[in-house]
Amino acid sequence: MAALQTRFFWTSSLVKHSSRTTQRTSLHCRNSLVPHSSWILHNRPLCLSSGHKTQETQPQEAERPAKKLFRELVSEHRAAIAQCITLVESTHRAKQAQARELLAEILAYLRKKTTENHGIPPSFRIGLTGPPGAGKSTFIEAFGKQLTEAGHKVAVLAVDPSSSYSGGSLLGDKTRMPELTRDMRAYIRASPTSGSLGGVARNTNDAIVVCEGAGFDIILVETVGVGQSEYAVADMVDMLLLLVPPAGGDELQGIKRGIVEKVDLILVTKADGELKIPSRRVKTEYTSALKLMRKRSAVWSPKVMQVSAVTKTGLTEAWDAMSEYRNIMVKYDLLLPKRSKQHRIWMWNHIRDNIMDIFRCHPDIGPELPRMEAEVDQGRITSGMAADILLGRFRARMSWHDNDL
Amino acid sequence: MAALQTRFFWTSSLVKHSSRTTQRTSLHCRNSLVPHSSWILHNRPLCLSSGHKTQETQPQEAERPAKKLFRELVSEHRAAIAQCITLVESTHRAKQAQARELLAEILAYLRKKTTENHGIPPSFRIGLTGPPGAGKSTFIEAFGKQLTEAGHKVAVLAVDPSSSYSGGSLLGDKTRMPELTRDMRAYIRASPTSGSLGGVARNTNDAIVVCEGAGFDIILVETVGVGQSEYAVADMVDMLLLLVPPAGGDELQGIKRGIVEKVDLILVTKADGELKIPSRRVKTEYTSALKLMRKRSAVWSPKVMQVSAVTKTGLTEAWDAMSEYRNIMVKYDLLLPKRSKQHRIWMWNHIRDNIMDIFRCHPDIGPELPRMEAEVDQGRITSGMAADILLGRFRARMSWHDNDL
Repeated sequence: MAALQTRFFWTSSLVKHSSRTTQRTSLHCRNSLVPHSSWILHNRPLCLSSGHKTQETQPQEAERPAKKLFRELVSEHRAAIAQCITLVESTHRAKQAQARELLAEILAYLRKKTTENHGIPPSFRIGLTGPPGAGKSTFIEAFGKQLTEAGHKVAVLAVDPSSSYSGGSLLGDKTRMPELTRDMRAYIRASPTSGSLGGVARNTNDAIVVCEGAGFDIILVETVGVGQSEYAVADMVDMLLLLVPPAGGDELQGIKRGIVEKVDLILVTKADGELKIPSRRVKTEYTSALKLMRKRSAVWSPKVMQVSAVTKTGLTEAWDAMSEYRNIMVKYDLLLPKRSKQHRIWMWNHIRDNIMDIFRCHPDIGPELPRMEAEVDQGRITSGMAADILLGRFRARMSWHDNDL
Repeated sequence: MAALQTRFFWTSSLVKHSSRTTQRTSLHCRNSLVPHSSWILHNRPLCLSSGHKTQETQPQEAERPAKKLFRELVSEHRAAIAQCITLVESTHRAKQAQARELLAEILAYLRKKTTENHGIPPSFRIGLTGPPGAGKSTFIEAFGKQLTEAGHKVAVLAVDPSSSYSGGSLLGDKTRMPELTRDMRAYIRASPTSGSLGGVARNTNDAIVVCEGAGFDIILVETVGVGQSEYAVADMVDMLLLLVPPAGGDELQGIKRGIVEKVDLILVTKADGELKIPSRRVKTEYTSALKLMRKRSAVWSPKVMQVSAVTKTGLTEAWDAMSEYRNIMVKYDLLLPKRSKQHRIWMWNHIRDNIMDIFRCHPDIGPELPRMEAEVDQGRITSGMAADILLGRFRARMSWHDNDL
């Protein structure tokens, strides 16, 4: 526990790098080239307040709902977190406008905090993946408790779009983390039970922002190592952990090679009792496997460690490794660029998720679809030709020279 | 070999189902609701000739290149296959117009052949996947030779977009199939060495049509069990085979569970010499695993068989199982609907692959992208909000009521 407490002040230990941090800070102070008032969405002005106004904590007459929620959130009213998350997940149009206003307020507040903190973001986002049965919840319960006891505020978010239709494991199920659920310094949000991966991912990205606004400095994003959700989580977090059970052969089939190439730290779980020896063997196997992989980073080599949530073995060492990773990322000015890159990835993912609806609803396309599908069905045209024809129509409509209105 | 020859006439044995085949035939005779001359692509009329004209085999004066190629292809001129595939893979605009004309001719010809064959398509498309080292090429070499000796014409196409950048295995590498390469009744096309999965998949779908036009009645589509290409192949073929080596543990990690749920037949390779016993054990393991899986089809249960390309053991039995699968699919009228569904999937895949280019090049979007990405980078707006703003602009432009030109 000593080490956990020592590491709590990782951010402050970096203040001395003044020349570099000033440089980082300036990255956040340069004026945007875009006048904010010009961002019009659905003919409704998008409220993007500057950072200066966000400090007000006094309620005003007829305060807007988003403003009120924001004030309560940053004042760490516990109920406000769930209300904010519900708002940003809403599919109701008026609520969505409020959600945009709320998120803009929170982002401005977080930018200000980052600037004050010498360009270091106020939270550490950690992703956890691994096959079912790796003991992720048990680990989060024990690890989260140690973090809150050391003074951290810990949010646990879950990404598991499969749970909605496969009837699989419910991530973030509060009954699996009884102690952390009762902990006032922790917040656990179960996985949304409906929606595509794209929708769930967007909600999780927004929930991360909300939790950061509420002062959570450790955000744990949990996913089950099935489907595409673990790749999604890799693009949401500062650091990705893979939890593997101390079992070989068939059990390891559940772990995709692709994800091993993306992890920053591998934790072999259940390193206690009669599983202690298999756990050491699995650690050796993964250590060898990692050596064979291409080096992804010049500053960080993924590590393999053993942990036990039962005996609490290795939790402090694991946290030390995570802190070391974060400190290195900050030292070499890699953390903010990593997040920027992720935000761009998600912007494009969201566009990709939604653009097909625009295509399908296009007045030149929608009515033609049944006929075109019938042509493809009957083998009159190839699928590629059908796509070309429909895309050609869509493209023609988009042209500047289009004046057939 | 006897069985292979017996099975060669699987299509003719189904002619007796006259009432059903008539029904299937009528599916291909109903007139399209769409006048073909109305399909305009890039302001260039798309030539979709009817099936009646495709029988002419006499060259005409100033014959169009696509027409000439088509004539040579269906006359089984060997050089025409490669020329046709090169044409359909071309990214040159004028060539693409010729490719559309060529494919339309081939499709009309294949529709006619299907109608004459009582609604049974003239080819059997078989996908082969499996981890590297499963012995796919060796199997295809031995299996393909037996098929050509039994009178079949066999085309081998490869889908391996990874080979272009990972330097991995080159599928369809002719040096790995020396006998089949020399066989005049076989055609092997190596995997295209460039392009995204979407591009490679489209080229392979078109190459399947070309090979069918050239009279190949067995189309083998090979993929390496890495990345998404095996899922792509599952949607290109009538039947999917998984080849697994007789090794357990770590080697099996390369096989994704998802693909096991999609296969129709599992072949455990290298069932000879000292691997005969491990091969039997792996067969038992997969048989048990398949029993635990949800039943996908009411008419077909995936089988597991052992094969050896060295001793030629199990090849005839494997072909019997494939023929049985095809006969059942035809008997229950499932083959053409399966292909129709696949064609639709590919139409949408091709649209999805290309629509983002239209978005990026849109005059209201393209110039805004750098600014919007900068806003997202700097944490002024969330990735979801940025996507909403850009999609809102795009959508506004697409509206019927848009008159701000």
